[in-house]
Amino acid sequence: MAPMDSDRTANPVLVEALRGDTRESAHRGAIAVLDADGKRLVAVGDVERAVFPRSAVKVLQAIPLVESGGADRLALDDEELAIACASHNGEPRHVEVVERMLAKAGLDVGALECGTHWPRLLPVANALAASGKEPNALNNNCSGKHAGFLCLACVLCGGSHLREYAKGYVAPRHPVMRAVTEALEAATGYDLQKAPRGIDGCSIPTYAIPLDRLALAFARIGTGTGLRPGHARAATRLRKAVAQHPFMAAGSDRFDTKVMEALGERVYCKVGAEAVFCASFPERGLGVAIKIDDGNTARAAEVAMAAAIEAFVDLDDEEADVLRRLSDMPLRNWNGIEVGALRATTELREGLHG
Amino acid sequence: MAPMDSDRTANPVLVEALRGDTRESAHRGAIAVLDADGKRLVAVGDVERAVFPRSAVKVLQAIPLVESGGADRLALDDEELAIACASHNGEPRHVEVVERMLAKAGLDVGALECGTHWPRLLPVANALAASGKEPNALNNNCSGKHAGFLCLACVLCGGSHLREYAKGYVAPRHPVMRAVTEALEAATGYDLQKAPRGIDGCSIPTYAIPLDRLALAFARIGTGTGLRPGHARAATRLRKAVAQHPFMAAGSDRFDTKVMEALGERVYCKVGAEAVFCASFPERGLGVAIKIDDGNTARAAEVAMAAAIEAFVDLDDEEADVLRRLSDMPLRNWNGIEVGALRATTELREGLHG
Repeated sequence: MAPMDSDRTANPVLVEALRGDTRESAHRGAIAVLDADGKRLVAVGDVERAVFPRSAVKVLQAIPLVESGGADRLALDDEELAIACASHNGEPRHVEVVERMLAKAGLDVGALECGTHWPRLLPVANALAASGKEPNALNNNCSGKHAGFLCLACVLCGGSHLREYAKGYVAPRHPVMRAVTEALEAATGYDLQKAPRGIDGCSIPTYAIPLDRLALAFARIGTGTGLRPGHARAATRLRKAVAQHPFMAAGSDRFDTKVMEALGERVYCKVGAEAVFCASFPERGLGVAIKIDDGNTARAAEVAMAAAIEAFVDLDDEEADVLRRLSDMPLRNWNGIEVGALRATTELREGLHG
Repeated sequence: MAPMDSDRTANPVLVEALRGDTRESAHRGAIAVLDADGKRLVAVGDVERAVFPRSAVKVLQAIPLVESGGADRLALDDEELAIACASHNGEPRHVEVVERMLAKAGLDVGALECGTHWPRLLPVANALAASGKEPNALNNNCSGKHAGFLCLACVLCGGSHLREYAKGYVAPRHPVMRAVTEALEAATGYDLQKAPRGIDGCSIPTYAIPLDRLALAFARIGTGTGLRPGHARAATRLRKAVAQHPFMAAGSDRFDTKVMEALGERVYCKVGAEAVFCASFPERGLGVAIKIDDGNTARAAEVAMAAAIEAFVDLDDEEADVLRRLSDMPLRNWNGIEVGALRATTELREGLHG
């Protein structure tokens, strides 16, 4: 299977970078907006093409932790539930919350199987280096999700021999990952047994899922429609936890945090690697899924998501201002001179308005 | 003017990122390979589309420094000439050479008008932070080019009132920038008066130039054909200086440095921002120019350039191995597990073999 094989199926340009008035670079991609009944409101580009959602579906993957009663059993608070859905910056506050969460399951950093990387935000990495430290698995952007998996493991094994039981929890056939995959399958209504499977950055499986199914899943978690009651309740609780603690979802200078700080429960959005971006607009009962073909998250998927929020969420002037700065921003050079712009294309904006 | 406007002109996919066996992301673009007489050997994608070459043409922009006699007058050595053509990492050795070069003109960091940014290579930035320092303009990847401009200013004004004279050297109408633009125009044979002009990251002008004209210029600097004798001599001297000191051209863990360390004078290559990449293969008398539409340099333009080198430069087994690791590389996750590959597409490889 090789999506995007042919030039005949080239997706439209959704985001463009201008230098002066001239387009310097361009990002193609697709965006689907669906309601929870599966009705497509927007289909720009090939929305049936399967994409690896990567971290964009962390909220769906956290559903079993809540549905199983694990969150209550371990008395996880909203910060901890929020970071279970996060791709965080590995800032000191994130590390602290993940450590606390692991401790509730009687575990520590040694149980995490997500691997280690330097925090991606330069000031955060620099601060860590300046303190003479190296990063560990707690700094990994996925450490909260993995702490959630370990808490789920704790519940599934009834707490006995947890370290032993949890070992290898990232493998597709481990009971933890089976529960996680089942939740993903239920929310998207898509048979993952037949889907191409890859290994994610943090070593858990990731399944290629059609973009419109991802949008459907995010419409469902905003409305509960099409989900079984336990999943619907769990999704609502997770969304509200993130809305309470948007810093936990990402961190300093991050799109998801900025948007959810500004808009609260009206938008639940979650970025994934390789420029997948999903969101739920609960007030409108809609779900959104974006994939930028070239995988550029920060420069393209975020701009496209900002344009989608502008198109579908009622914003007051201040909120509109926040969003406009994310969908149409001046580019400045090292001397602070405005040299161009990064913005959603007319084609994307027209597509969003049907 | 808005290149890349229409889906009908979508460039082919030159580089693909796979997760497992499934294509996860794809980079479209164009590549031109020309000889110094202007004959096109390769034209994949729209090679007549104008692109901002950004830093890819630094060697052309350094020609006036040498042709004017400035390099000799100030007794610039090969390390200094190499860094005048560089987009370097801002590592301590780079900073040292730029400082030395400025001192030869009687100047210091205060004369640089390139602005300041943190070194982009994380260990370099971390080391700077760990030493309690902040970056200055010497760490800017363009500081060597700007030191070259200041040395040219020194020669143009005869050394008197240099600081005064040099002020604003980044402006299009300053004598320094006029000389630089004239050299670019001569090498490409393209009328820059009519070309869209933007402001580069380091504040000098950048002109949109058709991709095939950039390839032509790089064929010319490898052969001397089509250049006036002073320019041809200057270009040869600059190329040889870089071949002697490839670390100065970029730095640790950088494509340009790795390739020129392996291949010496057989390849002169130079990356630019927004995924423009130019190279000269002097033995073959060829020039190459690449633009990846989405502007992803590290992940796409470099892979495409590695494939071009494989197609046109005779390589022994060890060299072939170096290049293959740059054009078709395994992708590993945070646990070091191989999760996919980044590679030149069959379409690109077939296009390169005409």
